[in-house]
Amino acid sequence: MASPNSRLQSEIDELCTTARWCYARGWVPATSGNFSVRAVDGPAERIFITPSGLDKGLVKPTDLLEVDMEGQPVAQLGTSPAKPSAETSLHLVLYRARPEARAILHVHTVWNTLLSARYESASHVPIAGYEILKGLSGVSTHEHVERVPLLQNTQDYLVLSRQMTEALAHYFDAHGVLLSRHGLYTWGQSVAEARRHLEALEFLFEVEGRRLAAGS
Amino acid sequence: MASPNSRLQSEIDELCTTARWCYARGWVPATSGNFSVRAVDGPAERIFITPSGLDKGLVKPTDLLEVDMEGQPVAQLGTSPAKPSAETSLHLVLYRARPEARAILHVHTVWNTLLSARYESASHVPIAGYEILKGLSGVSTHEHVERVPLLQNTQDYLVLSRQMTEALAHYFDAHGVLLSRHGLYTWGQSVAEARRHLEALEFLFEVEGRRLAAGS
Amino acid sequence: MASPNSRLQSEIDELCTTARWCYARGWVPATSGNFSVRAVDGPAERIFITPSGLDKGLVKPTDLLEVDMEGQPVAQLGTSPAKPSAETSLHLVLYRARPEARAILHVHTVWNTLLSARYESASHVPIAGYEILKGLSGVSTHEHVERVPLLQNTQDYLVLSRQMTEALAHYFDAHGVLLSRHGLYTWGQSVAEARRHLEALEFLFEVEGRRLAAGS
Amino acid sequence: MASPNSRLQSEIDELCTTARWCYARGWVPATSGNFSVRAVDGPAERIFITPSGLDKGLVKPTDLLEVDMEGQPVAQLGTSPAKPSAETSLHLVLYRARPEARAILHVHTVWNTLLSARYESASHVPIAGYEILKGLSGVSTHEHVERVPLLQNTQDYLVLSRQMTEALAHYFDAHGVLLSRHGLYTWGQSVAEARRHLEALEFLFEVEGRRLAAGS
Repeated sequence: MASPNSRLQSEIDELCTTARWCYARGWVPATSGNFSVRAVDGPAERIFITPSGLDKGLVKPTDLLEVDMEGQPVAQLGTSPAKPSAETSLHLVLYRARPEARAILHVHTVWNTLLSARYESASHVPIAGYEILKGLSGVSTHEHVERVPLLQNTQDYLVLSRQMTEALAHYFDAHGVLLSRHGLYTWGQSVAEARRHLEALEFLFEVEGRRLAAGS
Repeated sequence: MASPNSRLQSEIDELCTTARWCYARGWVPATSGNFSVRAVDGPAERIFITPSGLDKGLVKPTDLLEVDMEGQPVAQLGTSPAKPSAETSLHLVLYRARPEARAILHVHTVWNTLLSARYESASHVPIAGYEILKGLSGVSTHEHVERVPLLQNTQDYLVLSRQMTEALAHYFDAHGVLLSRHGLYTWGQSVAEARRHLEALEFLFEVEGRRLAAGS
Repeated sequence: MASPNSRLQSEIDELCTTARWCYARGWVPATSGNFSVRAVDGPAERIFITPSGLDKGLVKPTDLLEVDMEGQPVAQLGTSPAKPSAETSLHLVLYRARPEARAILHVHTVWNTLLSARYESASHVPIAGYEILKGLSGVSTHEHVERVPLLQNTQDYLVLSRQMTEALAHYFDAHGVLLSRHGLYTWGQSVAEARRHLEALEFLFEVEGRRLAAGS
Repeated sequence: MASPNSRLQSEIDELCTTARWCYARGWVPATSGNFSVRAVDGPAERIFITPSGLDKGLVKPTDLLEVDMEGQPVAQLGTSPAKPSAETSLHLVLYRARPEARAILHVHTVWNTLLSARYESASHVPIAGYEILKGLSGVSTHEHVERVPLLQNTQDYLVLSRQMTEALAHYFDAHGVLLSRHGLYTWGQSVAEARRHLEALEFLFEVEGRRLAAGS
């Protein structure tokens, strides 16, 4: 069995692979997006997160920042003078609200941007009836309504943190959160699970986006 | 001439290559889809099939499960504790109904999902008049109507098996079967032929999907 | 300066690279499409062309067939028992009608299929006003109307050959020919020029297809 | 710290990487597009620019042309008999109007072509309300209206140069300029910043193009 440290290192490697894969698909353009894992096996809880402004097509493990659960930098795997993104606070909100989560992925895609804009005045985007919903943890049938909470975008991260806390409490079984005309947050008990949720949700956003665009 | 075993090994290799290629195109997101080949040259008929829940971007020959024609695991090429997907039963139905089939590909794509949803209340999706129809085995002209049987999606695999058996009997010359808002099953006398059918059908689904979306 | 033979070999290499590149973009699905170069420097005129039914993602120089200007096989670079496609006759028609042409590319794409279907009853597809038109040989301004002749698809290659001969005479400055719901033929004085024409025309087909679909 | 020469060489390398990356995405089809960096650290100001007619999928540092700020060729890194594109004059206009710019990227994409055509009679394309706007230098909120000046296309580069000069003065904080049915010019204080602007703008053009096509 892997030691806690080697498991953490392997999760960090997979997080970076996932970030570069997202970049290659056009899902984190213009240095957008951010990605983190949570380490719970050491003496204190920590998260490892991509720094602000980094081209996600180039992310490697030594670029990640280590911060504590208050968002304070602890150390850095590498030596660059990078700093945490303002969105680090949303990762922390998410990790607190979802104790089982070990990885968070945040992407800006054409289809999540379009769908979040189309549902602008709603509090969530409903998605129902598709087999691929079974890619979401705990969902075992296509006869499921996934309600993806939708928050109004703002640059006030205190407001956004509070709204996200409330949305995660209200939509207690949601697998992702949309920020309007901004992007998606999704998570999992491992990077692999978070990525499975990402693939399922983005597939569904494209299907729903194209269906609505066709007026059917 | 290749020995039966080396032919089987080469088909298994090509099946895994095809699975990874499908993943790269976004056709089996979130560990969806499954892929199999049938071995008919040994003492007993067997199928080799991808296990449940595996990321199809990573499939390698030792991940495949060997099951008999009743769906019982015989042995496994590798050592992982994987188990057959519930959809293994549909592969078996297909192999029984199409004795010449040696390979089956099952994918979830944006366009097959959209088209199957648009034809929701129909028993098949008709596609006619395109040159690329000649990519389907036995079709030698674009003046052909391919009727792709469409089944309502359900999690009851007994019901689905019965419906697929009936559809394959009724649409005796079909090259694929659609499950509504779920995905496509297609097959061939080799992995290469199954892949040719997959490429032809998915191309046509995209063309028809875009044509209908444009209202023309 | 390169010897005639080394120039030919280099064109054949580039043709195969172009075929595999087209496959990777989804432009020759299901073993569709075909590609040729003309050798004019030897004792007799010859063309080298991809054989029928080959997966274009795998084409290599030794797969090509050498045929004379009557379409008769002369020899083959490799040893496979491949035979010329029925569409070889259209390549010969094109080389006769365009003496300067040294390479021909024939692809089936989603957008050329859709656009050719939309213009079904017309004799050509007009494209005007785009800067990228300058990618077509001899066009030096966006204020140009490119008329791409459009032929009805048929499996009767004698009829198709006659229609293509007439279209190439009538549209004497055309850079490509569309077959309805089938695909595009384009050509150039080298593989590089043919590929430039292909890229320009397919870009324009997508732009026009999306513009018309949007109803604007 | 890097010497001026090694910084320049590294920018030239990154410019070529960016050009090939644009080609792979279909953003500079048919030898279209052009790319440059400005050297300001030597005895005289110079720009290094891709030559006319080159396949951008193959650009390497020795293909670039060195020209002075009047557009006169100074020397060439390699030995090919290439010549500057007519659009070199627009790069010079841009460098004069934006003294901080060190790199310029010019691409022809499906979505910038469609959006520039749709806004045909306007003097700029407005884009507002998207988080990804923060990928543009100096923009710190989604509550920003980016006005991308739009010029009518012409083959008269004197006219175009004058119009671009005026547009850059009027839209003093713009991050890009569109030429109608032609393409986008964008720039940055480094190749990386220019590429970030390119990614942000093209993402937004696609989102706006799809939103308008859907009639919403």
